[in-house]
Amino acid sequence: MDLKNYIQERQALVEEALSSSINDGATPERLAESMTYSLKAGGKRLRPVLVVAGAEAVGGSAAQVLPAAVAMEMIHTFSLIHDDLPSMDDDDLRRGKPTNHKVYGEAMAILAGDGLLAEAFHVIADRSRFPDVTDAVIVDVLRDIAHATGPRGMTGGQVIDMESTGKKITPDELKRLHEHKTGRLITASVTAGARLAGANAEQISALNTYGEAIGLAFQIADDILDIEGDQEELGKDVGSDVEQGKNTYPALIGMEESKKRAQQLVNEAVNALQNFGDSAEPLREIARYVVTRKN
Amino acid sequence: MDLKNYIQERQALVEEALSSSINDGATPERLAESMTYSLKAGGKRLRPVLVVAGAEAVGGSAAQVLPAAVAMEMIHTFSLIHDDLPSMDDDDLRRGKPTNHKVYGEAMAILAGDGLLAEAFHVIADRSRFPDVTDAVIVDVLRDIAHATGPRGMTGGQVIDMESTGKKITPDELKRLHEHKTGRLITASVTAGARLAGANAEQISALNTYGEAIGLAFQIADDILDIEGDQEELGKDVGSDVEQGKNTYPALIGMEESKKRAQQLVNEAVNALQNFGDSAEPLREIARYVVTRKN
Repeated sequence: MDLKNYIQERQALVEEALSSSINDGATPERLAESMTYSLKAGGKRLRPVLVVAGAEAVGGSAAQVLPAAVAMEMIHTFSLIHDDLPSMDDDDLRRGKPTNHKVYGEAMAILAGDGLLAEAFHVIADRSRFPDVTDAVIVDVLRDIAHATGPRGMTGGQVIDMESTGKKITPDELKRLHEHKTGRLITASVTAGARLAGANAEQISALNTYGEAIGLAFQIADDILDIEGDQEELGKDVGSDVEQGKNTYPALIGMEESKKRAQQLVNEAVNALQNFGDSAEPLREIARYVVTRKN
Repeated sequence: MDLKNYIQERQALVEEALSSSINDGATPERLAESMTYSLKAGGKRLRPVLVVAGAEAVGGSAAQVLPAAVAMEMIHTFSLIHDDLPSMDDDDLRRGKPTNHKVYGEAMAILAGDGLLAEAFHVIADRSRFPDVTDAVIVDVLRDIAHATGPRGMTGGQVIDMESTGKKITPDELKRLHEHKTGRLITASVTAGARLAGANAEQISALNTYGEAIGLAFQIADDILDIEGDQEELGKDVGSDVEQGKNTYPALIGMEESKKRAQQLVNEAVNALQNFGDSAEPLREIARYVVTRKN
């Protein structure tokens, strides 16, 4: 299959859905602007694409799950806005554009993040967007997402990251950090799409394994790119992890071992899908892409 | 009825539930500490008491809805932590204790707020906590709460507040500010309790009217207390609104008119409950208390 084409088509659907997701007239104008600014700032759209690919893997369609794809990008964007704040990573640029607080000020950036998080739950809890989905599935999806986002997920991961920066940690601790900070939300994206498209418990279990594996592979690949990547393709300075005192896989277990580990995780992810047919081909391709990408 | 006793009993139940709500071992220790610090910092517990009273008004019990009471206090606490941040109201003290960022630093305070918001949704979406409640009701409650919290609710209200501070606005604009910033979450508290206890659509509609009325009455009373209150009973400086350039009802429509308006709203709230029996007596008493309280 042509993954590039597949991803581009899904990204286009997501972009279109994102651009109409905030401005409903009921949100104060400047807040809507600030939320939209970061939501539309680009990026790989990995999480929404995974929502769609998760749905397709179990026989569903993009149209069925597009609002959930938007919701996952809202949560991801919320986390980026708050991570960039002066008291956190203090970043002025993201994807080559000024960060939210640089444009709208710190107070508005905090509120834009808060607003995106709450709005993501509102989108999923809006039953009219998912006419063929049972309430039980909506509750399951909301629970998974809240878990992946909160203190036992992404927010907890950000704290572990803060606390371990500049300190030497073990490979197991680094794994825990990434599982929390990015792994849970990536996994919840795949399973949300699949649940909304009618996945059974066995399929969800396999997709959990898939999501955890690609989530970690994604981070290892990130660490490798930060050393071996092409500055231009990457769109950011190489070597910034070391500079910021971040723990990375190459630093902890060596470059060769890091690459081996990333490839193992991709294999694990693909193996988890052995009972899925051709409809899971995009998920398999995404797993391979996660470690071969250049940015 | 003895409202003081009623509230104290419900507050005690809420305090007990709050203290065991975070530390589950799966949350990074310092984050759990920071979240718990603000969650247990006291206060009137108006929102959780309203969840319980809302349930009781339609024949339910406190035990049935206690997790939802905790969730509403988590959301309220999230908003206080973020409101107190240096880039927002820059408050060092809340209820006589150092604010979250003063104790844990700004980054952790932002994350504690984020964590409390996500965790609130997780608590409600955890079906095992509400064994007798249908999934449809859980979805309704989650949708209401997300709406009340997000850009069309509390978060939007905070933006309106920021933008109107130091500027002269109309009484209608002030009403809109308060409806967003506090009214929606107060209303969602009453209706969440009632929904989880089996309220019908007519009851929810009446409780919406009740919640909106006491929400606004609460704010007008706050504005009045800021001028006429007793510094000691209030636990904060009187006159701080004027000092901060906040728009208040007494400033916009005069003190006498403000008191009249608050009393009208209490009457509206009580009238909305005319089809409810004795079980709604706590809600009626709370409406009266909202404007007679001393702090």
